[in-house]
Amino acid sequence: MSKSTCLLDAINSPADLRNLKTLEELELLAAEIRAFLVDTLSQIEHAHFSSNLGVVELTLALHRVFDTPNDALFWDIGHQGYVHKILTGRKDQLAQIRCKGGISGFLNRNESKFDDFGAGHAGTSISAALGAALASRLKGSQKHHLAVIGDASLGVGMAFEALNQLAVEKDLNLTIVINDNNCSIDPSVGGLSRYLNRQATSGEHTFFQALEFEVVGPVDGHDLSALLDVFQQCKQSGGVRIIHCLTQKGKGYAPSESGPAAHWHAPGKFEASNGFSLKEKKSLRYQDVFAQTLTELAAENSNIVAISAGMLSGTSLTKFQSVFPGRCFDVGIAEQHAVTLAAGLAKDGMLPYCAIYSTFLQRALDQVIHDVALQNLPVVFCVDRAGLVGHDGATHQGVFDISFLRQVPNLMIASPSNALDLRNLLFSSQHLQFPLVIRYPRGEAHGELNNEEFKPLPFGKSRSHKPGKDVMFLGLGCLVNELPAVVELLQQVGFDAGYCDMLFVKPLDKEKLHEIFSSTSNIVTLEEHALMGGFGSAVAEFMLDNNYKNRLLRLGIPDQFIEHASQHEQRRELQLDAHGIFTRVLHWMDSAKMDKPSTRNS
Amino acid sequence: MSKSTCLLDAINSPADLRNLKTLEELELLAAEIRAFLVDTLSQIEHAHFSSNLGVVELTLALHRVFDTPNDALFWDIGHQGYVHKILTGRKDQLAQIRCKGGISGFLNRNESKFDDFGAGHAGTSISAALGAALASRLKGSQKHHLAVIGDASLGVGMAFEALNQLAVEKDLNLTIVINDNNCSIDPSVGGLSRYLNRQATSGEHTFFQALEFEVVGPVDGHDLSALLDVFQQCKQSGGVRIIHCLTQKGKGYAPSESGPAAHWHAPGKFEASNGFSLKEKKSLRYQDVFAQTLTELAAENSNIVAISAGMLSGTSLTKFQSVFPGRCFDVGIAEQHAVTLAAGLAKDGMLPYCAIYSTFLQRALDQVIHDVALQNLPVVFCVDRAGLVGHDGATHQGVFDISFLRQVPNLMIASPSNALDLRNLLFSSQHLQFPLVIRYPRGEAHGELNNEEFKPLPFGKSRSHKPGKDVMFLGLGCLVNELPAVVELLQQVGFDAGYCDMLFVKPLDKEKLHEIFSSTSNIVTLEEHALMGGFGSAVAEFMLDNNYKNRLLRLGIPDQFIEHASQHEQRRELQLDAHGIFTRVLHWMDSAKMDKPSTRNS
Repeated sequence: MSKSTCLLDAINSPADLRNLKTLEELELLAAEIRAFLVDTLSQIEHAHFSSNLGVVELTLALHRVFDTPNDALFWDIGHQGYVHKILTGRKDQLAQIRCKGGISGFLNRNESKFDDFGAGHAGTSISAALGAALASRLKGSQKHHLAVIGDASLGVGMAFEALNQLAVEKDLNLTIVINDNNCSIDPSVGGLSRYLNRQATSGEHTFFQALEFEVVGPVDGHDLSALLDVFQQCKQSGGVRIIHCLTQKGKGYAPSESGPAAHWHAPGKFEASNGFSLKEKKSLRYQDVFAQTLTELAAENSNIVAISAGMLSGTSLTKFQSVFPGRCFDVGIAEQHAVTLAAGLAKDGMLPYCAIYSTFLQRALDQVIHDVALQNLPVVFCVDRAGLVGHDGATHQGVFDISFLRQVPNLMIASPSNALDLRNLLFSSQHLQFPLVIRYPRGEAHGELNNEEFKPLPFGKSRSHKPGKDVMFLGLGCLVNELPAVVELLQQVGFDAGYCDMLFVKPLDKEKLHEIFSSTSNIVTLEEHALMGGFGSAVAEFMLDNNYKNRLLRLGIPDQFIEHASQHEQRRELQLDAHGIFTRVLHWMDSAKMDKPSTRNS
Repeated sequence: MSKSTCLLDAINSPADLRNLKTLEELELLAAEIRAFLVDTLSQIEHAHFSSNLGVVELTLALHRVFDTPNDALFWDIGHQGYVHKILTGRKDQLAQIRCKGGISGFLNRNESKFDDFGAGHAGTSISAALGAALASRLKGSQKHHLAVIGDASLGVGMAFEALNQLAVEKDLNLTIVINDNNCSIDPSVGGLSRYLNRQATSGEHTFFQALEFEVVGPVDGHDLSALLDVFQQCKQSGGVRIIHCLTQKGKGYAPSESGPAAHWHAPGKFEASNGFSLKEKKSLRYQDVFAQTLTELAAENSNIVAISAGMLSGTSLTKFQSVFPGRCFDVGIAEQHAVTLAAGLAKDGMLPYCAIYSTFLQRALDQVIHDVALQNLPVVFCVDRAGLVGHDGATHQGVFDISFLRQVPNLMIASPSNALDLRNLLFSSQHLQFPLVIRYPRGEAHGELNNEEFKPLPFGKSRSHKPGKDVMFLGLGCLVNELPAVVELLQQVGFDAGYCDMLFVKPLDKEKLHEIFSSTSNIVTLEEHALMGGFGSAVAEFMLDNNYKNRLLRLGIPDQFIEHASQHEQRRELQLDAHGIFTRVLHWMDSAKMDKPSTRNS
């Protein structure tokens, strides 16, 4: 980039932005930022794209008018935070966004004083901004608080909870900017979104006015002059208000303006000149196996329905929806409602498959317990992105679900290690009389499908079993695929190692565990999940409840948040790839000589 | 009761109700039901009261007009379900409501075919009804679905999520009845409640109309004739609509009409003739120790703020609020928002104490992880009703929090066994640089306070320690108070038993654990929490990670939902009282002889 970047080159903080003299300069800067985004992001496999093109003017105007970081800016989710990062001293790091060691794809308090509050999950910005605004009120500070929230995030339950309180609070400086692009990742759904659409032309704002909010707008979110005016007035008058700002996702880049929203959300590498995708052809992913299988099953079983919480593309349920539109419910970013909706469907004889990412199911634990498990309703939770999720990083890791679900009575949990088992688990799950969780990872599925017929999987039974005299691995989920190589490596240094693909966390295959614990002294559990309370912990409970005295090594995720990097890099760093597992187990086997019984009578 | 009950005597199901001939008979029946409620509930220590007086006419009208149980009725929470129970064949069981073996205080699918969907937590009814209505649509059924939801429950995030989907669904028969009494347990808060108040007189309904709902009302919820008309029209026309129904909590009984709402929600025993309380004077409860201590601390530390999610009375924060109204935030039934609000307050230097019942914190797991722990913000979660909760039963047991929180990085967890330790933990928590959970049970606090000065408790350190050569108990929380008696009983049969009050689940006091595991072979963990993933599981992880070979017995809640009864009865049934613990440990000690090492080299 040459001449066109001369303004952007000189912008290293919002203060520089405030030194620009004319509207024309700001508009030129907006164009430069767009070009910079297209050039940089088109070369990255895993960046968010179109959300950022949609907020160029909005972000410029906010930082130009308000005194950031003294005034506080709360971004919802953070897909759209790249322009903010560019303007706050991180433009040189954009090329490394979401890479190991690079800047985060979301907001992060550790990364910049301009990131007032971390984000990643939807619907949090108003609550956080309200908390900060209340702190300002208590401290007598006049600073402004700005929450930028998308129309889809505004449908999140907790965003409404926050509005409900905000409506009755006084003496705050808090502005909510609705970034209304009529999209989440997929097109927005629901009554609130339809309402906002209508207001975009009519201008009346009965919904918010009913709660006694002052509403400004709609404002054209790509009209810098209009935005500057609105924010300037806001700053001067203080108080609480909502600004309805209309933006276009993908604005200013023809292919993303006209192309499918879901594609341009995170398009992967593309040819900047024409938008042609440079993605390598994807292999079959677990999410595809899920959606394809469910669509096949639904053709035979008319009770099957699918539920998504704003993630039709992300779960591949778009495929199911295209075949069975009346049996696919996308409820928007509303995991709590999604789960209780599933319970309502199940109690009247439907068979709901509720597909939610592991990290987002954290939103619906109470509904899983109170509405599904307590009533023992046969809902199948298809928990996608379970395990390490790669570039999304710490906010999105799917490494807590076993611990928060394992204790729930009536709820069973399985985690297949390959495409075929996922397929057959889904097939088998049609006939259960209780709720089931099937957790599977992000990314490419292991194994082949080869058009095999469906086979029922015996419930609570482990899969393949290779005996080993010196050490036995109890593997769960995708990491099982590392075990043949680990066994081979151990063989080479003289250990007879075996492994078992346990498949079920709950119920555990106790028969198999008794067999293994009775015949091999060294046991290693392996899971892509937090060690505290996870699968290994379940095995530990089994072992002690049955008074076994084996040595047990639990491998999984330690007690820390795991930052963004590729899944491969994350696994390597955590020593959860074959080499890492081998190294740790070898060390542990060697340490056996030094272990001494610690009590008098054991 | 004599003549006045002659109508009610003959009502054993809604069919009987439909056979009544005149409005006068129905009105008489309403009066009889009120008298029956007052007579029966005034003699029960732990029943919900005023919510039920508020819905007598509403419940009569619903069952009279709609063809229950073919038409489906969804009650939100269920505090107000007693009249429904009376009309659906359970009136003779009302005197045993919430007692061991008696009917539940909430809705329960196992109890009656008229209970279409269980309830207990707020805000679920619209989601469940929508699920069932979608099932009807798929099956071509014309049945009606009725969700009765209070104005406070309507402010729950998931209720809004459900409305958001419902607004765009077609071809359903679903009626939402807003039972607007301007109360949760305490008076309702928030913008939506204020809005409903205004509509009660103005009649315009912009909020719901903005989402394109048809709204009927306001209707006087005590005018049977009006209610019958409205429901009849509803039934005939089908479709989706919202009926705004104004009711008065405590209606028809003078003391509860004019008395404080929170008191009459669940007043305990009272003199039916005049409403005078027959409650025995309560001893100091844990919730009082919490609120009293926090109020004391807040007088010295101006950064302290308190947050409640619609439970000011339940957490005793009413006391704090009366002293520091500007530093106490009751956000309504909105746990998700409450937690992220706390994070927003904490990031700007306030010290939020967020008081939420264990069972309701299930609603906010994601916010604890994503907004508080990931950002390592010093929020103190005061987790009330942790453990067995008594008469509220299965929907409200606080026995899952350790498992769903223990795995969360940065988050620490303590559970004091007495009033003094709770007090000193709160004192000590003011200076932490990370989030902390303090869990404490429902009911009477153990130990004395005696105006002792505050003393800092060393973080992550256990408390009292009585050594034992034969068996050592590691106790957590209130059950520690059973241990002196257990130790005494064991002593009598010749075992030298000791115990340690561990206080912290995370971090565990590893130094103390090493000392104990190295010196005593038989270890028993004790907690009022699910065994899967709980405190005992943490100890099991410690033991195996450190290669100890002791025997370990974990005592706690087995993998099942625990029904309503008194806490005392629940503990006895689960063998978690002194006698039960003694019995199980004795059996376990005896079984030691039969345990054989199960592996070759141990």
